[in-house]
Amino acid sequence: MRLSLNDARRLARDTLVKIGYREDELDSPVAHLMDSEMRGLDYAGFARILSIADRHRKYGPPAQGMTVSRDSPVSALVEGHDQLGYIVGQKVTDLAIEKAEATGLALVGGNDTWYTGMLSFYAEQICARGLVAMIYSNAAPWVAPHGGTEGRFGTNPICFGFPCGDEPVIWDIGTSEIIHAQVMLAKRLGQDLPEGVAFDVAGEPTTDPDAALEGAFAPWGGHKGSGLAMVVQMFGMMAGSAHLPEYMSGFGMVTVAARPDLLRDRAEFEAEVAAYSRAVRETRPVRGGPPVRMPFDRSRRDRAAVIERDWIEIPDEIHARILEI
Amino acid sequence: MRLSLNDARRLARDTLVKIGYREDELDSPVAHLMDSEMRGLDYAGFARILSIADRHRKYGPPAQGMTVSRDSPVSALVEGHDQLGYIVGQKVTDLAIEKAEATGLALVGGNDTWYTGMLSFYAEQICARGLVAMIYSNAAPWVAPHGGTEGRFGTNPICFGFPCGDEPVIWDIGTSEIIHAQVMLAKRLGQDLPEGVAFDVAGEPTTDPDAALEGAFAPWGGHKGSGLAMVVQMFGMMAGSAHLPEYMSGFGMVTVAARPDLLRDRAEFEAEVAAYSRAVRETRPVRGGPPVRMPFDRSRRDRAAVIERDWIEIPDEIHARILEI
Repeated sequence: MRLSLNDARRLARDTLVKIGYREDELDSPVAHLMDSEMRGLDYAGFARILSIADRHRKYGPPAQGMTVSRDSPVSALVEGHDQLGYIVGQKVTDLAIEKAEATGLALVGGNDTWYTGMLSFYAEQICARGLVAMIYSNAAPWVAPHGGTEGRFGTNPICFGFPCGDEPVIWDIGTSEIIHAQVMLAKRLGQDLPEGVAFDVAGEPTTDPDAALEGAFAPWGGHKGSGLAMVVQMFGMMAGSAHLPEYMSGFGMVTVAARPDLLRDRAEFEAEVAAYSRAVRETRPVRGGPPVRMPFDRSRRDRAAVIERDWIEIPDEIHARILEI
Repeated sequence: MRLSLNDARRLARDTLVKIGYREDELDSPVAHLMDSEMRGLDYAGFARILSIADRHRKYGPPAQGMTVSRDSPVSALVEGHDQLGYIVGQKVTDLAIEKAEATGLALVGGNDTWYTGMLSFYAEQICARGLVAMIYSNAAPWVAPHGGTEGRFGTNPICFGFPCGDEPVIWDIGTSEIIHAQVMLAKRLGQDLPEGVAFDVAGEPTTDPDAALEGAFAPWGGHKGSGLAMVVQMFGMMAGSAHLPEYMSGFGMVTVAARPDLLRDRAEFEAEVAAYSRAVRETRPVRGGPPVRMPFDRSRRDRAAVIERDWIEIPDEIHARILEI
């Protein structure tokens, strides 16, 4: 189903209101879901709304009462009280920006939440204020450590952002071979997973999304990538997450924002980042290969194209289930 | 050549003094080099002393006059003025600890330096004070980005540390398939590199260390790992490094230290990290595989064994060249 961006935005908003969210808390979540769709990350767009609806069907209506504690000039903790991560993550971001602008450096945690979304969405906001961003967000233990077959960390995204005028450098990855939302989308569409990305509950390799959801996903990047995922898990724990949180609740996140002028003139730093981006894009490619890209180049280009054409395509199965809500 | 730890320590210290270092600045560099040898990272131990000597043969005697600027309650910049990275890195670490203990959070940069060593050496010190560590250190562009064949970043280590009594969790990796010191060691020992880790100056794959040093190393971890290496490069730039520093000078580093009690009671956090470490080690291994390890488990065990037996083995070629100095 093809929808104009405005129609898609309205559909996302109306659906979340039907699920039980308040109009006045939806600006950031809707912008976030739309951003995922516009960047071509379909598993994190409208498909995610279905996952949010499923979660509320199981655990009751949206929570209220997010609070801020442990407030200091350089830090704060946003206690989610089971609030949706898109909302908690936005509050963490707002506080990190506010404190870093005032003192130069801030570390803000969020906890007792679920589905923090694409960390690049927050990093872009931090970079737009001329700040460097470091963001870590843990989740339930769906992913096995290197050499293991049982979940010990989430698909744990990690993200860094560096300000650079209108083209900040954003690096945002999931630390598993496949992310939870991709498995959920494969399940919804009745598709198999690729080989080598999941184990079933007995520890044997599987390509079945249901078996993978009962078992564990494989980590990305061997022992190095597996270690990075554990790092993210421990940042979540620093914010108050249990070390092995329950399925779809009790996740944590930590955001660090820093003013570059703690160490160097901001304009000079941004010029250096711009020069670096050019140097990377001009690298001689491997024989016969495409031009080298900077992180986020593809997302930025895809999003600009979608905004220009002013429509997105949503799989009919997903659209039909959204309308059911 | 087998040396007792005391003899090895004395040899390292005497050799660095011969090269031109002052006795009173050598405690940390000697401990650092010894730590690398004791952990079995031979390329970063005595072999590194030869590389330091080579560098001074080319660029003159050790620099003096490291200074601290841009001092704030949460930050500082250590300007190396071409001082050895082992010394600059220690100063950065000391300041990060001091400031984070006082304010809860600190970001300290170092620049105009070279050879910052194993970041885990600094992270262990930060964790020993009950602080969380994030450390990024860039270098000259020896490594090609994913899909490219020309150097655009260093073998850029990145390290995170989480306090946990006597067993902090330390994750410390190089973001290339092979690190510079390993190529230098292969060159010194007349060995080939493995397949797939380097390009020659024309952009073709090579296993010859000399050709690799003229060309570029391959990144680790495909586009994700390549992006992480760029992140580290940009942190170096934040501290004042040029975006493509010259061979063996002008490197930068950034260290962030944070008190866990910004977000959570320290003892409770350390207990959670300990519980997590146990849960990871108890993960069911892949069929027929060895037990799952936490990052740093092997280093900690190897080092304890070396301290127990009280000797290290240094390749005769390396030992002979050390004695020449």
